Amino acid sequence: MTTVREVRLKSRPVGMPKHENFDFATVELRDPGPGEVQVRNLWMTVDPYMRGRMNDVKSYAPPFALGEVMNGGAIGKVTKSNDPAFAEGDLVQSQYGWREGFTAPGKTVQKLDPRGLPPQAFLGAAGMPGLTAYAGLLRIAALKDGDVVFVSGAAGAVGSLVCQIAKAKGHKVIGSAGGPEKVKFLKEIGVDHAIDYKAQKDLTAAVLAGAPDGVDVYFDNVGGEHLEAALNAARLFARFAICGMISIYNATEPQPGPRNLALLIGKNIRMEGFIVSHHFDLMPKFIEDLSGWVREGKVKWQETVFEGIDKAPDAFLGLFSGQNTGKMLVKLA
Amino acid sequence: MTTVREVRLKSRPVGMPKHENFDFATVELRDPGPGEVQVRNLWMTVDPYMRGRMNDVKSYAPPFALGEVMNGGAIGKVTKSNDPAFAEGDLVQSQYGWREGFTAPGKTVQKLDPRGLPPQAFLGAAGMPGLTAYAGLLRIAALKDGDVVFVSGAAGAVGSLVCQIAKAKGHKVIGSAGGPEKVKFLKEIGVDHAIDYKAQKDLTAAVLAGAPDGVDVYFDNVGGEHLEAALNAARLFARFAICGMISIYNATEPQPGPRNLALLIGKNIRMEGFIVSHHFDLMPKFIEDLSGWVREGKVKWQETVFEGIDKAPDAFLGLFSGQNTGKMLVKLA
Repeated sequence: MTTVREVRLKSRPVGMPKHENFDFATVELRDPGPGEVQVRNLWMTVDPYMRGRMNDVKSYAPPFALGEVMNGGAIGKVTKSNDPAFAEGDLVQSQYGWREGFTAPGKTVQKLDPRGLPPQAFLGAAGMPGLTAYAGLLRIAALKDGDVVFVSGAAGAVGSLVCQIAKAKGHKVIGSAGGPEKVKFLKEIGVDHAIDYKAQKDLTAAVLAGAPDGVDVYFDNVGGEHLEAALNAARLFARFAICGMISIYNATEPQPGPRNLALLIGKNIRMEGFIVSHHFDLMPKFIEDLSGWVREGKVKWQETVFEGIDKAPDAFLGLFSGQNTGKMLVKLA
Repeated sequence: MTTVREVRLKSRPVGMPKHENFDFATVELRDPGPGEVQVRNLWMTVDPYMRGRMNDVKSYAPPFALGEVMNGGAIGKVTKSNDPAFAEGDLVQSQYGWREGFTAPGKTVQKLDPRGLPPQAFLGAAGMPGLTAYAGLLRIAALKDGDVVFVSGAAGAVGSLVCQIAKAKGHKVIGSAGGPEKVKFLKEIGVDHAIDYKAQKDLTAAVLAGAPDGVDVYFDNVGGEHLEAALNAARLFARFAICGMISIYNATEPQPGPRNLALLIGKNIRMEGFIVSHHFDLMPKFIEDLSGWVREGKVKWQETVFEGIDKAPDAFLGLFSGQNTGKMLVKLA
């Protein structure tokens, strides 16, 4: 008999989530019935967008249900198979979330060919965060030759890929992140002008110091003051890919938008929000491009790893205090 | 000897402009030298964007200079010509602004063929405001079949054209304007759901009452609460043409942006600011389409006319208290 631990949503947070919002349970895994597999998770992901799903609000992703497991992506290994499509030991991707393992129909998980990459890369650079960076920069912001690119949350899972894709394509990149360690990482991945926003009084001036003629593309992971600075620093016909606004996810009151939004008009700025799930058609091309960049040493990544399911809430909460450089992950086995 | 009166910028306003910011002068017009014409203005335009030009701030249009005539569009008649390209009596369009007449090089004015329209229409529906509506709705918001359209400032020079172009193309249109008289006008021009925003406590609910499934296109002339309501009411993949934000033009402090801007992300909204001068290439097609719609009775317009140059400041100030239905004009002769 196999037992696993899982994390459930106990109560909906108001503002910043707390440990008391999470509950742990130990459950027994049934043996796989016909067409089912049993999976032991190796890695699970925590991502900022999950904060929105903790609210009982209709949005692009349905809210997590109270008393149920927090769901999301994981990478695991098949331990028992009753589905001829899977053998014991196969690596699989799944969306069953914050748990050490599960039994489920084989058709609800995807076999993973790691193509020489570490399997957890498929929760980060080679997974949704990577595709988010690729689609946002190339399709939404429509990056074109000569564009100067500004990225907020630049040391995060998405932001660090945006920076490197832009560099791989020959662009000047300004990246903002919090603290000297992240700034160091930004320099390592080739960012031309790395800003420690926590050490800046005037974020607009900090951006313009790196891009005296202004920026053509802004990739927003943060919102708030970063968005305001990007509007100030934007050039004519700038394009903003609005990917996330982590600065306001835990706000208990609606936060005012940028005070300079009228700059959209005179500067003819296009600002477009997006969700990666509308861009899955780009996945094959993305993986092809990414493989090339990795081979050429143009793209690398960093992980911040918490060990064990007990640490999953800590890993998640750490996203909102900027504890991660690169992808935040929980190693389960 | 010909004398004319003109209006000059005496001082830069803080907040709402006042009469004391304007100065009147009587000047003598020299006889036209070689290549010059003398013009008597018949109509001049006042437009919201001129408020920005009263500030000493670099923007898409250069600031008006202190002590100089407020410039802008006018329609006049040639009274003396020393340019073989013009005859006495020719109608001309010019950008010499708030004055009863001027002497200038013929090459700096454009001969006007009114094509059966009243000449002042070329300051409104058949001029820049009309092209603004056309370019914003069709190119920036990329109107497509089935779109539900929401327009703020819907009874204004630009807004009323947006409503009618959308109706001519078979769309459902929700329009917002201030006061019962404007709402009556909106109904006359075929708006499906006309909102008197001054009588509404909940603008989002008012929009959704007319568009229960939400809006696909928002044409923004107002900003502020209207933009916030449009974000709330937007459907997936909505497109916003950001044309003006008259609600904040006289603000003395930067005004916060919409508190719900993060909706851009989940709804995959595209929000694009624009200035008509980047879309002059559409002018011939616009005039062709407009002529057809006017012939078919699908587009009409209304004017609010102040008489005499003395009233030019009143006409201009009236824009910010919503005194105009349709195009605000000053009749000079």
